[in-house]
Amino acid sequence: MVCKSSEIVDTAHALADAARRAVLPLFRTEGIGVENKAQTIAGFDPVTAADKAAEQAMRAILAERRPDDAILGEEFGIRPGSSGLTWVMDPIDGTRAFVAGAPTWGVLIAVSDESGPIYGLIDQPYIGERFEGGFGRAMMRGPQGERVLKTRSDRALSACTLFTTFPEVGTEAEGAAFRAVSSQVRLTRYGLDCYAYALVASGQVDLVIEAGLNAYDIQAPIAVIEAAGGIVTDWSGGVAHAGGRVVAAAGREQHRAALDILEGFV
Amino acid sequence: MVCKSSEIVDTAHALADAARRAVLPLFRTEGIGVENKAQTIAGFDPVTAADKAAEQAMRAILAERRPDDAILGEEFGIRPGSSGLTWVMDPIDGTRAFVAGAPTWGVLIAVSDESGPIYGLIDQPYIGERFEGGFGRAMMRGPQGERVLKTRSDRALSACTLFTTFPEVGTEAEGAAFRAVSSQVRLTRYGLDCYAYALVASGQVDLVIEAGLNAYDIQAPIAVIEAAGGIVTDWSGGVAHAGGRVVAAAGREQHRAALDILEGFV
Repeated sequence: MVCKSSEIVDTAHALADAARRAVLPLFRTEGIGVENKAQTIAGFDPVTAADKAAEQAMRAILAERRPDDAILGEEFGIRPGSSGLTWVMDPIDGTRAFVAGAPTWGVLIAVSDESGPIYGLIDQPYIGERFEGGFGRAMMRGPQGERVLKTRSDRALSACTLFTTFPEVGTEAEGAAFRAVSSQVRLTRYGLDCYAYALVASGQVDLVIEAGLNAYDIQAPIAVIEAAGGIVTDWSGGVAHAGGRVVAAAGREQHRAALDILEGFV
Repeated sequence: MVCKSSEIVDTAHALADAARRAVLPLFRTEGIGVENKAQTIAGFDPVTAADKAAEQAMRAILAERRPDDAILGEEFGIRPGSSGLTWVMDPIDGTRAFVAGAPTWGVLIAVSDESGPIYGLIDQPYIGERFEGGFGRAMMRGPQGERVLKTRSDRALSACTLFTTFPEVGTEAEGAAFRAVSSQVRLTRYGLDCYAYALVASGQVDLVIEAGLNAYDIQAPIAVIEAAGGIVTDWSGGVAHAGGRVVAAAGREQHRAALDILEGFV
């Protein structure tokens, strides 16, 4: 497994490097080819040429280096495999942030076995920040160099910082559940997409609560946050690998306090 | 004025450099000395040792280089002057983002005469991005080098991207006014503080609408956005130098369309 894990880590970094090369030349440019994937007229769920180029670049590397592994990618779906491992990838998590020029989107790469994600990587190409966790690693590299990732210590909800991306948070009932937690914390902030999970792993944020996620939105954050000492589950305390309603917590106390409130709504 | 304007620009960059040196060592560290400035028990309006250190560093430079200019700073108030110029500074705009580890706060520096801001600078030290406008300059420097700042072209509200920091946006009536605009745009995003104004100047975002601002929150964004071709006014189309209710727009069409809705509420 030692050799295998280093191969996986090296491959994940190669994928993230390729995604950076594909995406950065298109960030904050005209003509990135924004299409709307939303099924309703009122919705706006953009996908860009950058999303597609990044996923294609990553798939090309996997075809060469890891041909027996399966792939689940946001833009091009499932490629079956035989190794028992699956690469779960979102080439641009936070495409709305990307098309608005905000530096809070990220490239998400996870490797999962039958138990769930065993390694994850969150990359923010514009800032030049990369967060990773798994195989005993929990670290980030950014503008200020390399740091170990470690979540915040246990603390009461009244001292917590909470993030979510959209203030409405899913359905009306899910929104009410979120607001019930939000009303108890010190600080609630919005809009960071996957970057908020990186901040949990970095020891900056106590809780991220979201709903309506896909597997490729959450598997990399799960691996990174758990490697840094945190906890990620669904709103009932079960596994969150498949997405849906997710609570990511820095410590057991924050996690328990959030679940105690959320469970009253689900 | 040529000599004078270059002195002002050089001094503004010296201030921003000093603020970076003061703030960055404290970003994402424990023990940044978060105090709560809010007057209500429910409020959380933090100020940190970083805010104070950055403003003190900037004031020390002004005392030496620009002793006749006035100063208005968020943390240490007014220093009177005799030159007719005032340095209007917010050492950390977005202290809530700062204490949460998000890279969307900024150092704001403006120089105003009796007509309002004539030069402004928005600096994001962690990303290493600096946006400036005035004296014929409109440019930014960041991880991808130097670029000219130019706002987006005119476009219909239905194609616009809108930002604000807090979903509740001021009073209940102000929130209703904001939501009336938000319901007409393609994409609404939250949480970026002054960084959203930098994105208007960069041609990424069409509108920022906020309420309850102070002069030091908006004077630097006004100078940068206007130098890049945009428009910043209050919700009635008047000057916004003193803060309050602000709409920043990439072009006349977006500005007019937003005012047409907002004026129905004020």
